[in-house]
Amino acid sequence: SSESNLIRATLFPGDGIGPEIAESVKQVFRTADVPIEWEEHYVGTEIDPRTQSFLTWESLESVRRNKVGLKGPMATPIGKGHRSLNLTLRKELNLYANVRPCYSLPGYKTKYDDVNLVTIRENTEGEYSGLEHQVVRGVVESLKIITRQASLRVAEYAFFYAKAHGRERVSAIHKANIMQKTDGLFLKCCREVAEKYPEIVYEEVVIDNCCMMLVKNPALFDVLVMPNLYGDIISDLCAGLIGGLGLTPSCNIGEGGVALAEAVHGSAPDIAGKNLANPTALLLSAVTMLRHLELHDKADRIQDAVLKTIAEGKYRTGDLGGKSKTTEFTKAICDHI
Amino acid sequence: SSESNLIRATLFPGDGIGPEIAESVKQVFRTADVPIEWEEHYVGTEIDPRTQSFLTWESLESVRRNKVGLKGPMATPIGKGHRSLNLTLRKELNLYANVRPCYSLPGYKTKYDDVNLVTIRENTEGEYSGLEHQVVRGVVESLKIITRQASLRVAEYAFFYAKAHGRERVSAIHKANIMQKTDGLFLKCCREVAEKYPEIVYEEVVIDNCCMMLVKNPALFDVLVMPNLYGDIISDLCAGLIGGLGLTPSCNIGEGGVALAEAVHGSAPDIAGKNLANPTALLLSAVTMLRHLELHDKADRIQDAVLKTIAEGKYRTGDLGGKSKTTEFTKAICDHI
Ligand SMILES: CC(C)[C@H](C(=O)O)[C@@H](O)C(=O)O
Ligand SMILES: CC(C)[C@H](C(=O)O)[C@@H](O)C(=O)O
Repeated sequence: SSESNLIRATLFPGDGIGPEIAESVKQVFRTADVPIEWEEHYVGTEIDPRTQSFLTWESLESVRRNKVGLKGPMATPIGKGHRSLNLTLRKELNLYANVRPCYSLPGYKTKYDDVNLVTIRENTEGEYSGLEHQVVRGVVESLKIITRQASLRVAEYAFFYAKAHGRERVSAIHKANIMQKTDGLFLKCCREVAEKYPEIVYEEVVIDNCCMMLVKNPALFDVLVMPNLYGDIISDLCAGLIGGLGLTPSCNIGEGGVALAEAVHGSAPDIAGKNLANPTALLLSAVTMLRHLELHDKADRIQDAVLKTIAEGKYRTGDLGGKSKTTEFTKAICDHI
Repeated sequence: SSESNLIRATLFPGDGIGPEIAESVKQVFRTADVPIEWEEHYVGTEIDPRTQSFLTWESLESVRRNKVGLKGPMATPIGKGHRSLNLTLRKELNLYANVRPCYSLPGYKTKYDDVNLVTIRENTEGEYSGLEHQVVRGVVESLKIITRQASLRVAEYAFFYAKAHGRERVSAIHKANIMQKTDGLFLKCCREVAEKYPEIVYEEVVIDNCCMMLVKNPALFDVLVMPNLYGDIISDLCAGLIGGLGLTPSCNIGEGGVALAEAVHGSAPDIAGKNLANPTALLLSAVTMLRHLELHDKADRIQDAVLKTIAEGKYRTGDLGGKSKTTEFTKAICDHI
């Protein structure tokens, strides 16, 4: 394919095992002839005053310009005077929805074999407002902020996603029996959007009950949409059902059509540089990026190859009980493409 | 035993299936010769202005006087101008800790067979402050309040409980990486109390990670202590691991040594009065009440009889896949005593 047909995408390899698993994605993409040209950006070693974090302004500009990117794990350096890397990305790029498809991997046994759901988390407000203060000594408060704008935006995305992916049901998760105003507004917005999608079943589930249902019978759920903190909790719970964050893809949707896919697991400094890391979460995240770009053929080929390699079980990394190196596992995937 | 040796305890049979399962507890207690005399109180049919709810002032006074009680399910009647029955009880009786022992029931198969943990939930503040307002149109906020007093109180109870029950570890569940001030204060209080219990291992686990660990390997946990909303979520999640709220005991601890045990499942109006309800959660809650009274012999006898009846599987109510009536199941338990 000629240079001009290539889609430019930002790549943040990240820290720790990040560069190794990013290398794996690049190799798999080359093998599958994905028409993407990577623009690599690393986390800086000094605080960039324009972002108040170790992320460089140039790297944010790169995502804004390309409108699509992939991100490995980033450990926020300890210290004061700067913002968390992940939170800075969400804020600066207005990444308003975190989307996590979560499905049982054939051949990789957990207690659950019928998980097939997608969590869509509001990613900009709620309990993450950062507004907290001490009222008097020994009494502190945090503000949870819910706005009509952000709630409508994530609800719209959830129904759009459900329809585009042939999913049948959207469940809004809430605690409006206690937080009648905040979660109540969130539900009101979901209901408004639901009316525009009569073909999609809409339901509301209280978060405590939702967690109980998820561990008893996750097959009850299809697409779940919820405020920030509930999304944080439920998306990790769901990842646990299928084996953990090392296997779960994630993609952040931002204003203006930006999509930043990311592996949400840690940077695992203990095994960094040892060719032991499992690139599955980053690979499957890259697949969600391809789907966002509507490159479904490439997405299918790569996803199938990853799932087949795991299912066969001959090449698995240590976290999945195998003995393969990152490069061996990656080669096995490439051989399946 | 002579009248004067009897311990007086308040009994709220509650609504729906409440009276039937309360009858079952009374029968089992008689059979086991438990030295308790019940003082029965029903939810009123009119709002009591002194409680602003359908709970009568007399019934609250009864718990305050007896310092111990048992409560069936109570459905809050729909309508305005009155408070939820459960929230009124928590508030008026200052029930600051909700304690839920959660263990796999031998012979009742779920995906998990090694659950043996206790969740201890702060029950009076946090996200349940009831303080919410609209800032401008389309922007609403809720206040989460954390106080040193309530955090210390529930932490003290958690460590006291762990020690009294021979448990080895207390995990404080939080999201202090985001809510540094509120959850930070909660953790600070837990740490202070932990120092007084060097024989008990203390750890801190972020709530999202905690939920993932719980579904992957609940045996990692022993006693968990946490702010209100996290407790609401995690205690239901844990109930799901062992089969649901119909099997999970619960006990609320209040200021001045009050203990109000309760079945936390719903009032199941659809099967009310049909002799179909499962009294297990109320029976096991009654057991936690007996332990609070240090009547461990009686508690053991009843708990063993309930667990044996369920394990044998000959008499099980419909919700557990059996065909027994409430009274048949109860009789089988009595036969085991
Ligand atoms: C690291 C933490 C701030 C973050 C969050 O709470 O959002 C993480 O749990 C996540 O889900 O991306
Ligand atoms: C019914 C509801 C208000 C209550 C709560 O949120 O506390 C319930 O979920 C519980 O756990 O007792």
